[in-house]
Amino acid sequence: MVRYKATISYDGTLFNGFQRQPNGRTVQEEVENTLKKMANGKTIQIFGSGRTDAGVHAIGQVIHFDYPEERPLERMRFGLDTQTPEDIAVKSVEIVPEDFHARYLVKEKTYQFRVDIGKPRSPFRRFYASYFPYPVDVEKIQRALPDLLGTHDFTAFCAAGSPIEDKVRTIYEAKMEVNEAGDELLFTFRGDGFLYKMIRILVGTLLKIGNGRMSETCIPEIIASKDRNLAGPTAHPEGLYLVEVKYE
Amino acid sequence: MVRYKATISYDGTLFNGFQRQPNGRTVQEEVENTLKKMANGKTIQIFGSGRTDAGVHAIGQVIHFDYPEERPLERMRFGLDTQTPEDIAVKSVEIVPEDFHARYLVKEKTYQFRVDIGKPRSPFRRFYASYFPYPVDVEKIQRALPDLLGTHDFTAFCAAGSPIEDKVRTIYEAKMEVNEAGDELLFTFRGDGFLYKMIRILVGTLLKIGNGRMSETCIPEIIASKDRNLAGPTAHPEGLYLVEVKYE
Repeated sequence: MVRYKATISYDGTLFNGFQRQPNGRTVQEEVENTLKKMANGKTIQIFGSGRTDAGVHAIGQVIHFDYPEERPLERMRFGLDTQTPEDIAVKSVEIVPEDFHARYLVKEKTYQFRVDIGKPRSPFRRFYASYFPYPVDVEKIQRALPDLLGTHDFTAFCAAGSPIEDKVRTIYEAKMEVNEAGDELLFTFRGDGFLYKMIRILVGTLLKIGNGRMSETCIPEIIASKDRNLAGPTAHPEGLYLVEVKYE
Repeated sequence: MVRYKATISYDGTLFNGFQRQPNGRTVQEEVENTLKKMANGKTIQIFGSGRTDAGVHAIGQVIHFDYPEERPLERMRFGLDTQTPEDIAVKSVEIVPEDFHARYLVKEKTYQFRVDIGKPRSPFRRFYASYFPYPVDVEKIQRALPDLLGTHDFTAFCAAGSPIEDKVRTIYEAKMEVNEAGDELLFTFRGDGFLYKMIRILVGTLLKIGNGRMSETCIPEIIASKDRNLAGPTAHPEGLYLVEVKYE
């Protein structure tokens, strides 16, 4: 058996998330079906760096899997890329040591979140950015962002029902840029890991700050409260992109 | 009756083109259905600057229609925008003289065409750019583009079956840019009008030039031949955008 690591990209619109489940089309299912065909019917399980929810996109999701034989890298990449459906692309493939694990050895993840603030909403972004129809003071958001940096217990920014007990995470980078046309916000968050729906709750809170309905100094209080009810709403999944995963 | 001019944008993916027809969902049908609701059941016909084919997008298509009463412009725009489906956006609305006509008075049109040349093909561009999997020498295309400028009989670049007899058109601008990532070409064509499928045949020809399968000096000969068979293939519709329409 040879362990392969692959970096894949997918348009989450028509998937019921990454992880295989009884109902609905998933990324895991499609990639595993393709691997099974390539390996002459042998079942091959893939492991992702983490799951993504329905509608969430990936530019650089990382997976690993064990393949019965060694194949030239570009042939493996091309085979996987062309035999998976058009909404999944396989960007690169490499052979890794047997103890590599796409999920357990993650050192750093980067997510981006796109918000369409144009009037009207762009038809081209309806599946690729979340729409925010209210006025946004960009500088209020810029002033609030540094309060997220560093190591904190992010319980207040974690959706209820998460099985994970340790909610301490470190955010290395939290920024927001406005595009040239002035009708789209691009948030970037880089950290050692993120809790369930954390990025979407962060963005929902930051948009409320930008709109003046929450104070630009409220982030430290929300973090300290550990109370999900004090944070803003969960932004819609279609704006979210898993951009990069780094390993030890 | 008050004549309105509106600038609309649409994602062509799920439309069977602009023009109303017996089978398939069209932009004209959706906008007219919305106007009918707004006008309490009165049938209102719209006229576009020209039709777009199935899968072709518009960033700045222009239409006109006659409405039974004058309404505040932003209310008209907002009503149309929010009551049309999400893949149509109404960007602006103005009142025009009764003799304005969206099709007959066109002075200039601008189209863009996006080509994905990345490896692998981006899942996010599969409905928004045409894919070209072969090597492209960008400079060959750059050197061929100026030969399209000016007034020519473009019969060789017009799809068979067009009812239009006069095939002389003037191209004011023909350029191509490569994006920062180097995985997408953006063609821009501005002229006094374009023949049926002309942009797509121009792009199909230019890509063959870029790939070295046609000479970079072949454009004048193809124009002179008036023979569609000498030009390249018709590029796929999903890369094409009607960007702007200007009037006298």
